[in-house]
Amino acid sequence: MRRIADPTVRRLSLYLRFLEECEERGVATVSSEGLAHRGATTAAQVRKDFSLFGSFGKRGLGYTVSDLAKRLRNILGLEREYVVAVVGAGKVGRALAQYGGFAARGFHVRWVYDADPAKVGMEWNGLRVRDVRRIEADFPRTPPDIAIVATPADAAQSVAAQLVELGVRAILNFAPVHLTVPDDVAVKNVNMAIELEALSYALRHR
Amino acid sequence: MRRIADPTVRRLSLYLRFLEECEERGVATVSSEGLAHRGATTAAQVRKDFSLFGSFGKRGLGYTVSDLAKRLRNILGLEREYVVAVVGAGKVGRALAQYGGFAARGFHVRWVYDADPAKVGMEWNGLRVRDVRRIEADFPRTPPDIAIVATPADAAQSVAAQLVELGVRAILNFAPVHLTVPDDVAVKNVNMAIELEALSYALRHR
Repeated sequence: MRRIADPTVRRLSLYLRFLEECEERGVATVSSEGLAHRGATTAAQVRKDFSLFGSFGKRGLGYTVSDLAKRLRNILGLEREYVVAVVGAGKVGRALAQYGGFAARGFHVRWVYDADPAKVGMEWNGLRVRDVRRIEADFPRTPPDIAIVATPADAAQSVAAQLVELGVRAILNFAPVHLTVPDDVAVKNVNMAIELEALSYALRHR
Repeated sequence: MRRIADPTVRRLSLYLRFLEECEERGVATVSSEGLAHRGATTAAQVRKDFSLFGSFGKRGLGYTVSDLAKRLRNILGLEREYVVAVVGAGKVGRALAQYGGFAARGFHVRWVYDADPAKVGMEWNGLRVRDVRRIEADFPRTPPDIAIVATPADAAQSVAAQLVELGVRAILNFAPVHLTVPDDVAVKNVNMAIELEALSYALRHR
């Protein structure tokens, strides 16, 4: 399978979310049009997206929800479990560590770290905040699959560099800073403040 | 000033975040290199970004932190206040309504709505959750500048359509669905689950 572009991956996630709702409601088949509506795209684009991964669905009959959902989970790498470490035990880190929805999708937060002695030792949902200086000793052989960086901005780059050195290959970044990492490390950013400012920019310049 | 591309706007936000930290620490001037480090770009790109808005800084002397921060706040539309409505009083909506950091940056949550009678009437930080059916009566003349959509996925598109009809021109979307809106409406998405799945895709296919 060839590497697909990020916007396509995002549409696949949106289609999957829709299919899972169909599963919950007992809907057995969906059309390209139904999926297109959810991915805010066209039925032709839906068919094109799926054609990247081989054949799906039957002409005139639509897609079988359970089959398509299973195939998308496979493509998106959601059929396995991921071990997650959270660095930064502030508001965001704490919310992430306590959020049960992650584990339900196979993302298991196993470690939470902070540099602040006042936070180290706190326990949330059975997860104890560890001293960030222990990272290296904690991951000598098996680093987490995914690290979540939820530190202040000025610490994020050095934390990311250390995580990469210890073998982490996927980072979800909540710090308001663009992380520089080697090409073989995936970084995705979640930052509400940056998005809000993009909106205020749009309002100012429309 | 010509319209600038979204990645540039994001870099401006990152530069501004860095400048505000400099202000707090009492740093008076910064170099293109310092800004580049933070925006994960090059000093040449920093100068190019700023050249879009006229001249900044002095060759060899760098940029005056307070002047540059003020100019960026102006460009990003952060010198005014924005009225914000949150639709959807679930976990995300509640966190947003209670988060003080918004107001500090000029984003004031004035309304919170939900469709669930069990949530309507709840009060957080002096903000009472209102019945979503009252939106139309609430915004007869002056819609909020920005609406935050934090509803379940299947309600998000119809809520967005209603907001747009009532005059909203900027939407921050937390629902896992791509919103379809007219060209003159700005939409930005914040979705951790989608970002996590983009990471699991990357891990699966590297």
